[in-house]
Amino acid sequence: MGAINGKDFIDRLNQMDTEIWYDGNRIEGKISEHPAFKGLLQTKASLYDLQYDLGIKEEMTYLSPETEEPIGLSYLQPKTKEDLQKRRKMMEHWARHTGGMLGRSPDYMNTAVMSFASSAVLLTGRENCFPENIQRLYERARKNDLAFTHTFITPQVNRSQFYFEYSNEPISAKVIDKNEKGIIIKGARLLATQGGLTDEILVYTVPGVFDADEAFAFSIPTDTNGLKFICRESFVGGNSSFNHPLSSRYEEMDSIVVFDHVLVPWDQVFFYNNVEAANDFMYRSSFHPFAKHQVVTRQVVKTEFILGLAELLVQTINVSEYQHIQEKLSEIIIGLETMKALLEKSENDAELDEWGYMRPSILPLQVASNMFPRIYPRFSEIIQLIGASGMVTLPTEDDFHSNIRADLDLYLQGANRSAPDRVKIFRLAWDLTMSSFGTRQTQYERYFFGDPIRLSSTLYKSYPKDKHVGVICEFLNLKSNA
Amino acid sequence: MGAINGKDFIDRLNQMDTEIWYDGNRIEGKISEHPAFKGLLQTKASLYDLQYDLGIKEEMTYLSPETEEPIGLSYLQPKTKEDLQKRRKMMEHWARHTGGMLGRSPDYMNTAVMSFASSAVLLTGRENCFPENIQRLYERARKNDLAFTHTFITPQVNRSQFYFEYSNEPISAKVIDKNEKGIIIKGARLLATQGGLTDEILVYTVPGVFDADEAFAFSIPTDTNGLKFICRESFVGGNSSFNHPLSSRYEEMDSIVVFDHVLVPWDQVFFYNNVEAANDFMYRSSFHPFAKHQVVTRQVVKTEFILGLAELLVQTINVSEYQHIQEKLSEIIIGLETMKALLEKSENDAELDEWGYMRPSILPLQVASNMFPRIYPRFSEIIQLIGASGMVTLPTEDDFHSNIRADLDLYLQGANRSAPDRVKIFRLAWDLTMSSFGTRQTQYERYFFGDPIRLSSTLYKSYPKDKHVGVICEFLNLKSNA
Amino acid sequence: MGAINGKDFIDRLNQMDTEIWYDGNRIEGKISEHPAFKGLLQTKASLYDLQYDLGIKEEMTYLSPETEEPIGLSYLQPKTKEDLQKRRKMMEHWARHTGGMLGRSPDYMNTAVMSFASSAVLLTGRENCFPENIQRLYERARKNDLAFTHTFITPQVNRSQFYFEYSNEPISAKVIDKNEKGIIIKGARLLATQGGLTDEILVYTVPGVFDADEAFAFSIPTDTNGLKFICRESFVGGNSSFNHPLSSRYEEMDSIVVFDHVLVPWDQVFFYNNVEAANDFMYRSSFHPFAKHQVVTRQVVKTEFILGLAELLVQTINVSEYQHIQEKLSEIIIGLETMKALLEKSENDAELDEWGYMRPSILPLQVASNMFPRIYPRFSEIIQLIGASGMVTLPTEDDFHSNIRADLDLYLQGANRSAPDRVKIFRLAWDLTMSSFGTRQTQYERYFFGDPIRLSSTLYKSYPKDKHVGVICEFLNLKSNA
Amino acid sequence: MGAINGKDFIDRLNQMDTEIWYDGNRIEGKISEHPAFKGLLQTKASLYDLQYDLGIKEEMTYLSPETEEPIGLSYLQPKTKEDLQKRRKMMEHWARHTGGMLGRSPDYMNTAVMSFASSAVLLTGRENCFPENIQRLYERARKNDLAFTHTFITPQVNRSQFYFEYSNEPISAKVIDKNEKGIIIKGARLLATQGGLTDEILVYTVPGVFDADEAFAFSIPTDTNGLKFICRESFVGGNSSFNHPLSSRYEEMDSIVVFDHVLVPWDQVFFYNNVEAANDFMYRSSFHPFAKHQVVTRQVVKTEFILGLAELLVQTINVSEYQHIQEKLSEIIIGLETMKALLEKSENDAELDEWGYMRPSILPLQVASNMFPRIYPRFSEIIQLIGASGMVTLPTEDDFHSNIRADLDLYLQGANRSAPDRVKIFRLAWDLTMSSFGTRQTQYERYFFGDPIRLSSTLYKSYPKDKHVGVICEFLNLKSNA
Repeated sequence: MGAINGKDFIDRLNQMDTEIWYDGNRIEGKISEHPAFKGLLQTKASLYDLQYDLGIKEEMTYLSPETEEPIGLSYLQPKTKEDLQKRRKMMEHWARHTGGMLGRSPDYMNTAVMSFASSAVLLTGRENCFPENIQRLYERARKNDLAFTHTFITPQVNRSQFYFEYSNEPISAKVIDKNEKGIIIKGARLLATQGGLTDEILVYTVPGVFDADEAFAFSIPTDTNGLKFICRESFVGGNSSFNHPLSSRYEEMDSIVVFDHVLVPWDQVFFYNNVEAANDFMYRSSFHPFAKHQVVTRQVVKTEFILGLAELLVQTINVSEYQHIQEKLSEIIIGLETMKALLEKSENDAELDEWGYMRPSILPLQVASNMFPRIYPRFSEIIQLIGASGMVTLPTEDDFHSNIRADLDLYLQGANRSAPDRVKIFRLAWDLTMSSFGTRQTQYERYFFGDPIRLSSTLYKSYPKDKHVGVICEFLNLKSNA
Repeated sequence: MGAINGKDFIDRLNQMDTEIWYDGNRIEGKISEHPAFKGLLQTKASLYDLQYDLGIKEEMTYLSPETEEPIGLSYLQPKTKEDLQKRRKMMEHWARHTGGMLGRSPDYMNTAVMSFASSAVLLTGRENCFPENIQRLYERARKNDLAFTHTFITPQVNRSQFYFEYSNEPISAKVIDKNEKGIIIKGARLLATQGGLTDEILVYTVPGVFDADEAFAFSIPTDTNGLKFICRESFVGGNSSFNHPLSSRYEEMDSIVVFDHVLVPWDQVFFYNNVEAANDFMYRSSFHPFAKHQVVTRQVVKTEFILGLAELLVQTINVSEYQHIQEKLSEIIIGLETMKALLEKSENDAELDEWGYMRPSILPLQVASNMFPRIYPRFSEIIQLIGASGMVTLPTEDDFHSNIRADLDLYLQGANRSAPDRVKIFRLAWDLTMSSFGTRQTQYERYFFGDPIRLSSTLYKSYPKDKHVGVICEFLNLKSNA
Repeated sequence: MGAINGKDFIDRLNQMDTEIWYDGNRIEGKISEHPAFKGLLQTKASLYDLQYDLGIKEEMTYLSPETEEPIGLSYLQPKTKEDLQKRRKMMEHWARHTGGMLGRSPDYMNTAVMSFASSAVLLTGRENCFPENIQRLYERARKNDLAFTHTFITPQVNRSQFYFEYSNEPISAKVIDKNEKGIIIKGARLLATQGGLTDEILVYTVPGVFDADEAFAFSIPTDTNGLKFICRESFVGGNSSFNHPLSSRYEEMDSIVVFDHVLVPWDQVFFYNNVEAANDFMYRSSFHPFAKHQVVTRQVVKTEFILGLAELLVQTINVSEYQHIQEKLSEIIIGLETMKALLEKSENDAELDEWGYMRPSILPLQVASNMFPRIYPRFSEIIQLIGASGMVTLPTEDDFHSNIRADLDLYLQGANRSAPDRVKIFRLAWDLTMSSFGTRQTQYERYFFGDPIRLSSTLYKSYPKDKHVGVICEFLNLKSNA
Repeated sequence: MGAINGKDFIDRLNQMDTEIWYDGNRIEGKISEHPAFKGLLQTKASLYDLQYDLGIKEEMTYLSPETEEPIGLSYLQPKTKEDLQKRRKMMEHWARHTGGMLGRSPDYMNTAVMSFASSAVLLTGRENCFPENIQRLYERARKNDLAFTHTFITPQVNRSQFYFEYSNEPISAKVIDKNEKGIIIKGARLLATQGGLTDEILVYTVPGVFDADEAFAFSIPTDTNGLKFICRESFVGGNSSFNHPLSSRYEEMDSIVVFDHVLVPWDQVFFYNNVEAANDFMYRSSFHPFAKHQVVTRQVVKTEFILGLAELLVQTINVSEYQHIQEKLSEIIIGLETMKALLEKSENDAELDEWGYMRPSILPLQVASNMFPRIYPRFSEIIQLIGASGMVTLPTEDDFHSNIRADLDLYLQGANRSAPDRVKIFRLAWDLTMSSFGTRQTQYERYFFGDPIRLSSTLYKSYPKDKHVGVICEFLNLKSNA
């Protein structure tokens, strides 16, 4: 089968019987027609369609060596720097199509699955580990162009560093039993973006887990028995892309994932009950290098989108002469060029890993992942500071089709823009930074790779500092190793 | 008549035939029942009811010396420091009732009208100035407890410092004609908060106006012929105060104000066609001292609200032990105590003005007005940083009344809080900082007294620096006046 | 005897045989003539002379009720708010005389001694506590107008939170023995400002001490046997007040304090070997309120000095028109007015303590103490940003007395200032922010009350937050106490 | 002759009769033995010696195609990316030898001269332009390995944007006459780093000049008649590299440059009296790309030095466990890796210019030049924040050779370091960030490429934004060109 198109994606999704709860009701009927999901699913479909877009099909897919079918390029296991660049090019296409707004465009999770498979050997011969299941998942995913999400954050009951869960019933999802068919999971995960809107969900544990019951990884179909997705309020502002240019198309939804005695068949389990393997796999696999390569690519595109919008705002109200405006725009430029330089360096410094895959250098990507959660919220603030009071009084599409159109045309024109154009531009700025959709984007980028404070600790601890300390010791005639 | 109650307010408003446009339609029927306004108007009604609340009635009103009716204390022209403190106490009551969320609680505009009247003498004997009309408005307002809004920002067509409007038709509202009945206004103003939801609207010009046609001030009933209010999209998230604890009650609405050949009768005109008077009146009247006294009082209460919420979040997920959390909370504390100290200093340093009114010292209030637009957005950010990923996946009231209640109860509990309590707390945090309502609050505080950059220029220019320069000149044995 | 004058101070100091080490040598001869101390001691002498300056003598001293001698006002135990204001006025005089540059102007330590005496009752009846010795010290100090310094920071060997000293020989100063004459101290303290340049040194322990051997407090003469002061490099730039307007006068010197089997006679011991008393005394005595009242007063004066200098720089190179310059100056103004408002609030909210002394409210002072360590370095940076490249190429006094004077006069003139005046102004700016003297001032203000991170934790923990949490609980209908 | 060694450099300098004024006196005798210059000149000599260091000679020089002599690699006109990398490697060697502390290591100005020659064709055939003189200078410099400085900042009399000099006598250096021998210059320049300490000085005009008399460029020997260098106070703290590890070696001195009717012979004039050429040459020549390539290379090395020192401080007092320390160190790491990525990108994106030279891409270098002036001062602050009170009480080398050595050894030891080692480390930290030398370094990096505010305006204006604006226009269905 290989790479799918949009219709394939929608049809497959509509056939599933997933348990999704939204505002007190279980969703019935075609998921693709539900107002909270329609826009997003159409957008995802349009991404899959790009795989058959004649202009770029060859940049979006590669031919399966076995079947000669086209395969989505995000499944490609890169072996050369050129492969890495091809992967980036493909990711740029998808990111540009969506302004970088989709955290879960298909390439993100496809890359995760690819990286798991590329590192599966790490688990060979270890207790309760089944690397062959990872490989099989990868093959199945590649062949059917499966859509995934994942979930790994535990419920936020108590974030004290001294807290250990001592509930009678599991809160954080745990293996509570196993039998000949598989392992039984009970408990919850805090969050899955696009939870319920994909073919499968990858469930695993972030490093640092202590409890063997929580040390597992597997992938299961979204409509597996006992699996429930509880949505938050939808941030779709409405159907009109004039009024809500972003949320009408890109609102991804996040949901709580409940495992109500979910049976995970043995052949879908990657590992369980092995704390060491759980920690090890996330640290030493190529997940972080490849996932961050995808994320930073997307964030670069998103920053370009922001820069374009900021400059368009500036032109629309003609404020480019102000020094403080110039400084704000240059902040975005500096952020953009820095992210680009770090991304490029990660490719230039890429090296073959022990299993023969070309792994982007993690260090520049780590730096980018420390930086973006700080600069993105500032970009959002800059947009608001440029738009100023103009961000507040914005009429709607219907206003422009009513008797007050002439008033709007006169009073809401921009320096070189008609009133409808000016309002479109400001509504986009508003949707990006001030709507519920926009603030969720901000929070999302802020926490994409976890707590920023922990990210900076990790960077400090993992960074090779000895050489630089040695230089100072030599300069001062000290022994280097005190 | 004197101080009104909530029912009086609502009834009066419903009787008016104001032209308000919302999403392409002119609003028909009782304004108090429209979903976009219902919550706000009930809240305002509850504020008026406080004037008859037995516990605090005496702190909310004073007795008219003439009629012995109770009068809203915001109309009191203070002559002593005690009067100022009484005024503050009254404003605190209203602010506490609404968490400081209402920029246009009645005391704001009542104070403005009071300050205009207290400085009207400034206009005596000047060309095209009618101070007696200000006095009459004040008396009418005080007697009928009128609700006001105001509008002064010109349309944002072009914000270049070199831009002068050269349109055939006026864009910025202008006097285009006058006759024996009054002056005729055509054009628009960018923004009136609660525009259309008050008895009258005060229209005037901010200092810096060049064009005599724009140098005017007056007050007219909201349903004056030719006056149109064009609303933005409503940020009411819904009726449920569980889901949208703030927007369901405090969404004030902003609207564009269109003057379509509006006739302002002579006896409602304060001045027109007098640039010097226009600039002078805003600089030298007591408007800024009194208005800022009200605003800073409200902002102090709002900051207390934020501090309480931040600490409650911290307790709910039990993160008070983290040094970076302590630092963030202490930032809010520092902001709060600073604002309080400045407010208190403005009262301590108050002096009688030339017309015998006790005017709060403007300098500490100016400092507070420079500070709050910077710290408020940071407070919003701090709330988001404490809440972290917990801000994203929040179920709704209906979810708690459905079959998944047990799941929610288990998985969304807090450290010492039940799941519904925890969700309420987080939804409040979200509504305050991440909903469309919340971001509009942030933008509103950021620009309350105008462009922050201009505010800091004004502070620099108006601050008495000579004494301090003199100290240095003496220290260095330089001539002080170079 | 009572209040001394400058000559008294110098003579007394020169008669002591204090062991001070400077750059490898023990200092011999009159301390007042040593190049590293001369300027500072003359400055201190001039402060004491102010006690007899006819214009302000009455604001600098009060009459001893017993002897009718004039007593330095910093020894006054305030019993009314007026007393507090008198104290502040006196402190302002001393601070203004020195631009707020002296961290150890006599009022600082006099205030400390006064506060110890005013709280000595706290120690009554407790083991190893001798409150009567505190009282006696206070009386002796007041009568003789003694000059003090103090020391409390332990050596910075290892700042890990898990470090406990396990050296054979004491590193941090400890009681190592006691006999009929007194207690024996061995070990060191990291830092005493003006160490060796005062009559006595107050030695005590900051709260948080665990080891009973370190839980002590006493005061001893500077030339006590076994007491050594080891100076750092002097930051006096030279004698010329043209070249080094600040360091030539205000360089206070810091020294390491070594206790080499120092015998502290019993009648000078305040307490020893009582961890609880040590912690308690610092927390519950009036030391912090009174000391912070002095410090914030001085910092306000210093900020006025900075504002005057910043504005003079701006005028000298004529850059007041730039918006970013205006913003920077307004930052200083905001800092100044905020510090003033907090200081005033601490006096307004002062209350009598349990022993009848009028204690300034600690909260506003705590806020100021959290703020100043952040804004002072920024003020220093602002001065550098205004001065820009003009801070770098500054000729000396001798250059102006040489053959190149005409060149300097032409090329170094300011917008409205002669070249010598311009150079004086810039040299002051440099000395305040970029000389070794200036950067030590910055570091000093940054750490005046200890680690800023700990300060903000303390503020958070000690701040009364319950009322504000209660408001939110009420708003959300939650139980307040979860 | 080709590349010189240290002795060649010193001998040549000592033979010149340069007019240098220091503290009111004209310097007599060997410049290399003057206390203010000795350390710096020895350091520069050691850099030249590296050209003959057997280990790296081949990375420091290339063979002249004509004479087969070794030539300093900074004179190499790069034609390939490999050439660029060779140049960088050479610059890294010099920068590492000096911790990146020398703003005027020889490669900086050699690169400037090389870039001028590589772009001289720009001036061909233009009025009052003599490109052949540039070429000849380059050849002479390359052959004799001449040392240069340059000067371009005008005196800071009045920095208003509306100021035009209207003095009777020129203040800013101007052509006041010309004759058959050359042009006559009178006036001053604010600053030349190492002014008077090099063979020649390059004098030119920064873009933006209006006055034709100021539109010139030339190079003259340092001891040209009428040329005077007026030094600022020296920041050499003393000879001891224990006490002043940086200033004893790297204090470069800055001086005011006075032109007292200096005759510039025609064959040394590059151009004069041609405003257009002056502006054009600086914008379009390869000066900025090559100079910034050198500067960013040096700044990367300096940042490595800072990181090494910061980490060594952390280890010395054992504070690596603190989250805020980790965050501060990670800030330095992020800065370092970002600068490295930008530098590398400038090489990867290098392109041949119209004259066949491989020019580094200017954009990433511009971004780095906008960034470093902001992060360097923060790095300095971070060092101070880590060192805390330990930065203040630092004994001297002589203290360690005196009777108090045992005290120092005991009380000033570090967590894993002896007292002398600990003091050395802290003295280095102090010299880098708090000595007069250190703060001048900070100011220097802050203004290396001019006013940071102008730098960010330039970045904004020159950045290609149209493509990004186009994306938004397309997204919103707007016409791209409004």
